[in-house]
Amino acid sequence: MKILRSSQYDAIKSEILSRGDLDYKDINVTVEEIVKNVKENGDSAVLEYTAKFDGAELERMEVTAEEMERAWERTPESLKIALAEAAHSIRRFHERQKRNSFMDNTTKGKITGQLINPIEKVGIYVPGGKSPYPSTVLMNAIPAKVAGVEDLVMITPPGKTGEIMDNILAAAKIAGVDRIFKVGGAQGIAALAYGTQTIPKVYKITGPGNIYVALAKKQVYGIVDIDMIAGPSEILIIADDSANPRYIAADLLSQAEHDELASSLLITPSEKLAETVSKEVDIQLAELTKKEIAAKSLENYGRIIITEDLDEAIDLANDIAAEHLELMVAEPFLYVNSIKNAGAVFVGENTPEPLGDYYAGPNHTLPTNGTAKFSSPLSVDDFIKKTSVIYYSKEALKEVKDTILEISESEGLTAHSNSIRIRFEEEKL
Amino acid sequence: MKILRSSQYDAIKSEILSRGDLDYKDINVTVEEIVKNVKENGDSAVLEYTAKFDGAELERMEVTAEEMERAWERTPESLKIALAEAAHSIRRFHERQKRNSFMDNTTKGKITGQLINPIEKVGIYVPGGKSPYPSTVLMNAIPAKVAGVEDLVMITPPGKTGEIMDNILAAAKIAGVDRIFKVGGAQGIAALAYGTQTIPKVYKITGPGNIYVALAKKQVYGIVDIDMIAGPSEILIIADDSANPRYIAADLLSQAEHDELASSLLITPSEKLAETVSKEVDIQLAELTKKEIAAKSLENYGRIIITEDLDEAIDLANDIAAEHLELMVAEPFLYVNSIKNAGAVFVGENTPEPLGDYYAGPNHTLPTNGTAKFSSPLSVDDFIKKTSVIYYSKEALKEVKDTILEISESEGLTAHSNSIRIRFEEEKL
Repeated sequence: MKILRSSQYDAIKSEILSRGDLDYKDINVTVEEIVKNVKENGDSAVLEYTAKFDGAELERMEVTAEEMERAWERTPESLKIALAEAAHSIRRFHERQKRNSFMDNTTKGKITGQLINPIEKVGIYVPGGKSPYPSTVLMNAIPAKVAGVEDLVMITPPGKTGEIMDNILAAAKIAGVDRIFKVGGAQGIAALAYGTQTIPKVYKITGPGNIYVALAKKQVYGIVDIDMIAGPSEILIIADDSANPRYIAADLLSQAEHDELASSLLITPSEKLAETVSKEVDIQLAELTKKEIAAKSLENYGRIIITEDLDEAIDLANDIAAEHLELMVAEPFLYVNSIKNAGAVFVGENTPEPLGDYYAGPNHTLPTNGTAKFSSPLSVDDFIKKTSVIYYSKEALKEVKDTILEISESEGLTAHSNSIRIRFEEEKL
Repeated sequence: MKILRSSQYDAIKSEILSRGDLDYKDINVTVEEIVKNVKENGDSAVLEYTAKFDGAELERMEVTAEEMERAWERTPESLKIALAEAAHSIRRFHERQKRNSFMDNTTKGKITGQLINPIEKVGIYVPGGKSPYPSTVLMNAIPAKVAGVEDLVMITPPGKTGEIMDNILAAAKIAGVDRIFKVGGAQGIAALAYGTQTIPKVYKITGPGNIYVALAKKQVYGIVDIDMIAGPSEILIIADDSANPRYIAADLLSQAEHDELASSLLITPSEKLAETVSKEVDIQLAELTKKEIAAKSLENYGRIIITEDLDEAIDLANDIAAEHLELMVAEPFLYVNSIKNAGAVFVGENTPEPLGDYYAGPNHTLPTNGTAKFSSPLSVDDFIKKTSVIYYSKEALKEVKDTILEISESEGLTAHSNSIRIRFEEEKL
């Protein structure tokens, strides 16, 4: 891995951020056509695209109870147990995110409150392909169900034979997904946003996907809500001399294998550690199944930055606002409160990032590419919505009416003033 | 007002929703040019546009302490007191929205938690014009400050003389805005998103604006976060025979005066009430300052819908998901929990919507055009972000490692597995 000094930080940062700069104009036009066609023609358009892009001629889009049963039978017992345990841990964490409606009850005749209701209909997108991710199903479906979403629909592209991978269906069963449809890509997103004869319209769509899925989500945003447009994955490790270089190398590689655009950074004040980690990465890289992807990712977006001290390392980390941040220093909890911008913080040398991907409980859908400065991990909050509630008695309204009229008149809105005044005129009807 | 039966509901709904369908392609191109120019040329581009669109040749964009002082002196004492009282009420409500970071502390050696941090830099947009809205300043700035935002920047377009209206500056002082810049339109949004020599880059932009502002916000979404793209205002009143038709008429008109695209609906099972309200609206309309706007809005998007009973009225209201919903029925609290989709619910006949616009406490920035099905009033939540935190001891990681490996191997990610395994191999270094 390239080792650089913190004085070169600005250049490194723009390289890393440039991953988000690709120009997708051509794909956008294609996606626009697909979305429009599905909006206008519903099922027939969806089926055409599924035949064209997934190579599957479907007679029925919805996964049947028999298909679910068969997939469940075929899933190895050990994987079912592992998924159920992970689901339990994820559910327990997300239960803590639930909020109550509240009411301000301090003054006679005045109630103001905030009601929490689940979003009624939600769609989750799960990518297909040869290595499907059951963890994606758990991380999207569980917070939705904890929030109380009643109609939870999942879509995922089928293989050429029209089947969905067993482990995806098993995860959906464990997570409590209500209905599953075999459709992917921009056509799937459009179907969820507008509804078709078969696929129900939802109010919000979450879940990762390829560039077609991402652009389709962006296009339907406003018609429905979306979670976020996830960028390529990234890890930032802050380490000092106390850290084990083999662990660091392994954790950097666990990001790098995801995607050629993934970014893996080590920031450390220790030159010695920098050198050792760099060598250890090369050793471990050679053994990986996805070594080509990992090597390319490290070449382009993997860097070791040497800082003056740990404080400078923390400052840089806050400016980068990484998706995953590992604190591998002697006293890691000393620095937890100094981290202002990050998706998730992994504290200490025995908290590798994959623990968070699969098991620990917090969501693995995290803000990428610097967006942790303003956005948050996927959570129960993403599947509820709030409604304000206000009640005033006539007495209470009378007390504040002059204050309201003073402001409404300064804004020149006479009908607003009138709506207050009329309640204190003599009744004429 | 037009009186229709609930059997015609579908047609009414598509009319109301069509308000969001305008085609802004030409404006979008203009906005793209403005955003690009400001991104590339900073202050000089901003100053040019301010001269061109606002007619103001500015020497200095930032409002000075002296200007603030002068505006404060010139603001009538009665308005200052009213704004301070409203600010107090708004602040008290939003304080209740603050959340604590949490930690799951149930198991030895395992900590998972959710940290809450304010977004560090936020920009709020306040429209200019001849009737500026100090309430917009309070409703955007107060939740940001309650959340703990340190750098709160406000932008608003200047008048031809280069001045900002006194009541806007007075409201900014009361709300605790840190810096104010005289810039509006798409150029203002671009300046906040990218930063210029003078105007600091922020991480999130909130606040209403005209179509140029709305499209610019949509374009920079992703670079920064935005609150929402607010559509035209709307009110939906559910009433029965017990309701006062004069109050209903006044409240319908208080929305209609906002904008020709505003929508005002009454849904009632009472034919008699429908007739009386319709006549009363005509009587009150004649007296309004903004009667042309209100009349046009009612003609296009004002409707009275007669339902079979109150339950049907509630069902329609949930399907419309109005920004403001007034419950003017004999037992209003009986129905509060039946309202699933609305921005804010105003309970009973003495809770007119302008009470919420200015004073009661809940935010007046609310989801419009049906988006209350998936989005929420502006709140403290919009000015914070969450970071997950995970800590496992070596013992704790050992307990769960086989579960993690089972899943990571089913996903084909060997570097993920390796990052767990390496922690349990004999140390080689």
